Amino acid sequence: MAKAPILTPRAEDFPRWYQDVLNKAQLAESGPVRGTMVIRPYAYAIWERMVEEVDRRIKAAGAENAYFPLFIPQSYLTREAEHVEGFSPELAVVTVAGGKELDEPVVVRPTSETVIGEYMAKWIQSYRDLPLLLNQWANVVRWELRPRTFLRTTEFLWQEGHCAHATEADGHAYAARILHDVYRDFMVEVLGIPVLIGVKPPEERFAGATNTMACEAMMGDGKALQMGTSHELGQNFATAFDITYQDESGEQQLCWTTSWGVSTRMMGGLIMAHGDDRGLRVPPRLAALQVVVLVVKDDDGTVTEAARRLHDELAGAGVRARIDDRVGTPFGRRATDWELKGVPLRIEVGPRDLADGMVTLVRRDSAEKSVVGLDEVVGTVPALLEVIQSALHDEALALRESRTVECATVEEAAAAATEGFARVPWAMLDPAALERLGRDALTVRCVQTPDGGLPERLDDADNVAVVARAY
Amino acid sequence: MAKAPILTPRAEDFPRWYQDVLNKAQLAESGPVRGTMVIRPYAYAIWERMVEEVDRRIKAAGAENAYFPLFIPQSYLTREAEHVEGFSPELAVVTVAGGKELDEPVVVRPTSETVIGEYMAKWIQSYRDLPLLLNQWANVVRWELRPRTFLRTTEFLWQEGHCAHATEADGHAYAARILHDVYRDFMVEVLGIPVLIGVKPPEERFAGATNTMACEAMMGDGKALQMGTSHELGQNFATAFDITYQDESGEQQLCWTTSWGVSTRMMGGLIMAHGDDRGLRVPPRLAALQVVVLVVKDDDGTVTEAARRLHDELAGAGVRARIDDRVGTPFGRRATDWELKGVPLRIEVGPRDLADGMVTLVRRDSAEKSVVGLDEVVGTVPALLEVIQSALHDEALALRESRTVECATVEEAAAAATEGFARVPWAMLDPAALERLGRDALTVRCVQTPDGGLPERLDDADNVAVVARAY
Repeated sequence: MAKAPILTPRAEDFPRWYQDVLNKAQLAESGPVRGTMVIRPYAYAIWERMVEEVDRRIKAAGAENAYFPLFIPQSYLTREAEHVEGFSPELAVVTVAGGKELDEPVVVRPTSETVIGEYMAKWIQSYRDLPLLLNQWANVVRWELRPRTFLRTTEFLWQEGHCAHATEADGHAYAARILHDVYRDFMVEVLGIPVLIGVKPPEERFAGATNTMACEAMMGDGKALQMGTSHELGQNFATAFDITYQDESGEQQLCWTTSWGVSTRMMGGLIMAHGDDRGLRVPPRLAALQVVVLVVKDDDGTVTEAARRLHDELAGAGVRARIDDRVGTPFGRRATDWELKGVPLRIEVGPRDLADGMVTLVRRDSAEKSVVGLDEVVGTVPALLEVIQSALHDEALALRESRTVECATVEEAAAAATEGFARVPWAMLDPAALERLGRDALTVRCVQTPDGGLPERLDDADNVAVVARAY
Repeated sequence: MAKAPILTPRAEDFPRWYQDVLNKAQLAESGPVRGTMVIRPYAYAIWERMVEEVDRRIKAAGAENAYFPLFIPQSYLTREAEHVEGFSPELAVVTVAGGKELDEPVVVRPTSETVIGEYMAKWIQSYRDLPLLLNQWANVVRWELRPRTFLRTTEFLWQEGHCAHATEADGHAYAARILHDVYRDFMVEVLGIPVLIGVKPPEERFAGATNTMACEAMMGDGKALQMGTSHELGQNFATAFDITYQDESGEQQLCWTTSWGVSTRMMGGLIMAHGDDRGLRVPPRLAALQVVVLVVKDDDGTVTEAARRLHDELAGAGVRARIDDRVGTPFGRRATDWELKGVPLRIEVGPRDLADGMVTLVRRDSAEKSVVGLDEVVGTVPALLEVIQSALHDEALALRESRTVECATVEEAAAAATEGFARVPWAMLDPAALERLGRDALTVRCVQTPDGGLPERLDDADNVAVVARAY
């Protein structure tokens, strides 16, 4: 039954498709203040799962959660010159509070290096207090001129890790560990997105950083999305905020600080990496709702009862399931709606199948159907969810590989990168080459070792630059 | 060994004791902007436990989490007359953003009835969409002239539930259910605080509410702390934001809305309800850290090894434990520090006990010690933690009962309420009586049925008012 598609096809207009998914799957809406967003319950439940998985990995890496204020004195921002230059244009400033003009305006945090630096300086006395590994889950505000839901919003939710280390080497190792063991591991294993890791070119660094490492993913249209970053801040903030410690020999030393973050932007990455023309596709390990048990129709309550039993069995086996027994609503509409929302597996329980003791499993990733015995479902589903998880990852990887081109010249790279990722020797990208790429809105997303690792040094001779269009 | 107390004794100066606990147990500090706070890792981990337990109960009550913007157009606030009157003096206003003066200033949310009301109006079409049960975990800002860490801060963390119902009765039932099944249940069962529930007198209602219900607790100094509130908002916000639905007969009807919240203020309640002159005491069910395994001293590594095994066994049994093997720091100092932080149970592992196959358990609630066999520890601890949980609750209940007086006259109530809670017939409290109580800074904390339940109507003849000094 061919119907008018609910969503604009991706091939026709990818940005409109994205907007359609946000609306039709009831994921998010624009807020009343320009650039802000409302995250609706279905999407927020997915974000909660992201938080849970990332938070667990952060804690395993030894960092502790804390909370620092939303409001930062304007003077703090100005203490680190590059930092204030980078963030000034995006700041939201409170000038009136409690019915009065404030003596010193306060800034709504765009990021918290400055305010956390102030407290690190108080809390760190000796080498025994290091490393100090802090993280916070919070909202931040950066005034956006061209907002786009989840990808670039005036207010977004994120975690920001802020650490102080005794040595540069320790700071570097920890920042790289976060990128590897927290971000990349989460993105590959849970989001099912085969991210690249690498180092940002100097001009793409965080404002105030000496080194920025990033995870970069390819979206369904071949463009790149920066999914998370981990920064070495050198002694810039330690100098600005006087973050010092007494070393083992009794000397005062400046700390080396790092910061790292992922945000609700990952929700945009999820949609654009896995979504298809029928809507969102959520990888099972991430999904807040893995299985929907759908009552096809029911005349006497027996189908609903069987579906309930099945649901309870699945829930008892640790599957995140729910039942849809709204038989007053046409089955097709409900099925389409769960497809839109990207629930990994749909179990259709209908009177005819049920008479034979069977139900139908429908995979969201492939639309593949299988009819299985009622008593086999609980034994089948967990493994099938893992199959779906791998299939989504592999599909994203295949796309990335099919759209990644090894290039020997800048012109080749410029051509390839309009459709996907161009890999080109980093040493070749002098200022003129970067300028040439910039004319086609192409940027270096990250610099890697030839086998895709983090380079020891940015100017290692065999480093490879990944060039692409980016969100 | 009598030493100078680390904390100001509670009996000497309760507010200073509170401040001492915050500092010495490294719970929280003032932020750089007046009235804001920094929540340090040990306290934040307790807050995370509060969030986890409250969130589970909220979800069990059928509400779904979502996220609405921090910034609200100033015009939204003015749509509900009482609401704007109540919150105007406390607002923080962003007037400059992105380097420019804004055309319409935006308010930093003090609470989200208005912005959520706007979206409820869009999302609710028919009676089938009701009830709409939403919740968000967020920071809010109310400019405080007399800030006090956790109790009254310019920025605080909270959850705010916002629901729309088809009928007044449904709204009332749900608001009462949240108070009972979420707030009171959490506070009694997990926080170990025997809260009272009741209805607020009209002048103490939330700005824009037709009925405010609350949980009230007695602190260690006999004063009351409002721990959570649940509001019926009548059709006030539904009218202001046009939140309507089509009923079963096709008529457009106004919704009835409710809102309800608990905040980081509960952290203040925890400290003041259970703390003693040696510091915080965290009830085991709440504690992020239930048991610390303390290596007393160790010459050859065997004690630490035994302590580690014990720790791992406890962790394996689901006990939230950690090891303190910092034998370079004097044992007494470490023991005092864990007492300050209120860890419910300390297990001391020392070479002498260990030679006999024994360790010493020290309860934080009572300082009671017991020497038990190494192989009995895991079998003993979970039950002992429950004993400590009950003991803390019962101690708080005993204090409340010993300081609650049944009063027959306003003068009796005025006298009793300076030391604790005075129960007095609500019918007796005419404006003159309230004015008399107000002269001693006494207020009606809540109005209950004689047996401590929520009254059906505020003016039921046998209702009892609980009068106290309050934070």
